[in-house]
Amino acid sequence: MLKPLGDRIIIELVESEESTASGIVLPDSAKEKPQEGKVVAVGAGNVKDNGERVALEVSEGNRIIFSKYAGTEVKYQGTEYLIIRESDILAIVE
Amino acid sequence: MLKPLGDRIIIELVESEESTASGIVLPDSAKEKPQEGKVVAVGAGNVKDNGERVALEVSEGNRIIFSKYAGTEVKYQGTEYLIIRESDILAIVE
Amino acid sequence: MLKPLGDRIIIELVESEESTASGIVLPDSAKEKPQEGKVVAVGAGNVKDNGERVALEVSEGNRIIFSKYAGTEVKYQGTEYLIIRESDILAIVE
Amino acid sequence: MLKPLGDRIIIELVESEESTASGIVLPDSAKEKPQEGKVVAVGAGNVKDNGERVALEVSEGNRIIFSKYAGTEVKYQGTEYLIIRESDILAIVE
Amino acid sequence: MLKPLGDRIIIELVESEESTASGIVLPDSAKEKPQEGKVVAVGAGNVKDNGERVALEVSEGNRIIFSKYAGTEVKYQGTEYLIIRESDILAIVE
Amino acid sequence: MLKPLGDRIIIELVESEESTASGIVLPDSAKEKPQEGKVVAVGAGNVKDNGERVALEVSEGNRIIFSKYAGTEVKYQGTEYLIIRESDILAIVE
Amino acid sequence: MLKPLGDRIIIELVESEESTASGIVLPDSAKEKPQEGKVVAVGAGNVKDNGERVALEVSEGNRIIFSKYAGTEVKYQGTEYLIIRESDILAIVE
Repeated sequence: MLKPLGDRIIIELVESEESTASGIVLPDSAKEKPQEGKVVAVGAGNVKDNGERVALEVSEGNRIIFSKYAGTEVKYQGTEYLIIRESDILAIVE
Repeated sequence: MLKPLGDRIIIELVESEESTASGIVLPDSAKEKPQEGKVVAVGAGNVKDNGERVALEVSEGNRIIFSKYAGTEVKYQGTEYLIIRESDILAIVE
Repeated sequence: MLKPLGDRIIIELVESEESTASGIVLPDSAKEKPQEGKVVAVGAGNVKDNGERVALEVSEGNRIIFSKYAGTEVKYQGTEYLIIRESDILAIVE
Repeated sequence: MLKPLGDRIIIELVESEESTASGIVLPDSAKEKPQEGKVVAVGAGNVKDNGERVALEVSEGNRIIFSKYAGTEVKYQGTEYLIIRESDILAIVE
Repeated sequence: MLKPLGDRIIIELVESEESTASGIVLPDSAKEKPQEGKVVAVGAGNVKDNGERVALEVSEGNRIIFSKYAGTEVKYQGTEYLIIRESDILAIVE
Repeated sequence: MLKPLGDRIIIELVESEESTASGIVLPDSAKEKPQEGKVVAVGAGNVKDNGERVALEVSEGNRIIFSKYAGTEVKYQGTEYLIIRESDILAIVE
Repeated sequence: MLKPLGDRIIIELVESEESTASGIVLPDSAKEKPQEGKVVAVGAGNVKDNGERVALEVSEGNRIIFSKYAGTEVKYQGTEYLIIRESDILAIVE
């Protein structure tokens, strides 16, 4: 499997139909549109200036919404993933 | 529900009539115009270089005014929300 | 009332006549012109990397001069205010 | 051999065939494309503001994917290497 | 009087004749030209990340030279002042 | 002799023939090309925010490769040197 | 005399003949050319985030080479000086 570094997160995209499974509808407006995904793997977090590594707020399995134009696409063993930074995640869908 | 990350906040927009319920009138001038909203959910805050997470100043239920062009729109279970960072909030209406 | 966040301050503008009440005359030159105001509310201050919140240097009631093009206008219960950051304040008029 | 400085890493490129040995297929899209490599040497890490040097997350022998346009090429004793910073590494292939 | 905030300083300009009282002659070259002034009031200094406020190096009464295009002009009770940041001061004339 | 300041390093250039003594061949590609040099003197290092000076990773006598367009040339007692910052050094040739 | 602030240094220029007294010859190339000078006064240094002031590495009397386009010229009691920041000093000539 892929293990992301630092504050990076690997997500599987959730196809954005007009109304997604979790009830999010992404509006069609001039503002930046978020996209939905499922967290597949999380990095260990970045190290702060006090020398401590800060764990990420998201965990494997979380459904998240994130900035649409963030990240790098990669296909691994037949599945497409997106590697993004935690700062590009807007919210967890609970 | 949606749980925002870090210093992010989810707000429900308050339609800006000429004179809002809380008494704020948004002037029509050349300067940047603020907008009114109601806080629906707040993130856990960012982590400082000493390793501590700093709680946000706003809480669920607060009425706030914020920079008009800030944030990302998202529609969740039929309601439209805006996800913004605490730094885009100008003031709490008390 | 409005409660500003972080290092923000709410001020009421003092109309800049040629010679203001406090004796300040704003010269008409090519340089950036400051403007006079009265502090109506102050934020709790920002949090430093050591986790401490640093109180602002200005207090409610202070007369200040600030950078003319700073801030966001807002009208609240019939009065116009300006929300600015403490860093845009040049000096307190004592 | 070459010993990279700070947060730098020396990698040997893995020729990106359509489907690589580790099962990664790099999609042909408009987004930034990652590339695969094998870590040959790692730096000692950077020094944080508390004076401590933070070890890198990758080790010699790791297979990694990284941003395609990152790094500096160098040929040493007949082999071509790429010297990149750890922040350009997206994930370790485990 | 005016009390400057943070690392700001209020100075009275010293008219730059060809040779000033303190013996400084400002050369007429292509490089940035400094200007001479007298410190009238100093701010309390900025707060560092460890929470301490650092006192300024200049004091009331110091004659200084500073970057010519720095600062904001203000006229107060008939006298023209310039409000600048300590970082724009080049040297104290002793 | 010349004593570099902070994180600066003085190097003597190694003429980049097609194949250098240490076995490095600098490829002729579109990417940034590194250059080889020998460390002649190193600075004492920079001071971190905790007040400690961090020693450099390179020492006198090291053979290094560095970014080609980095640094400032200086000729001293008949020999040409280049003064660069440690961050411009890519790796030590061991 | 002039007392520089913070990390500033006052130097007297050493006329750069083709071969200077200390043996430095400044090559005529496309790269940035350094210039030679003699330190006349040094500032007390900057304050780090831990609240300590860090003394400069150069002292009065040092001969230094520095970036040619750095600094601000000033003429004081008949002599021309240049006020530069320590970070613009490349090396001390010992």
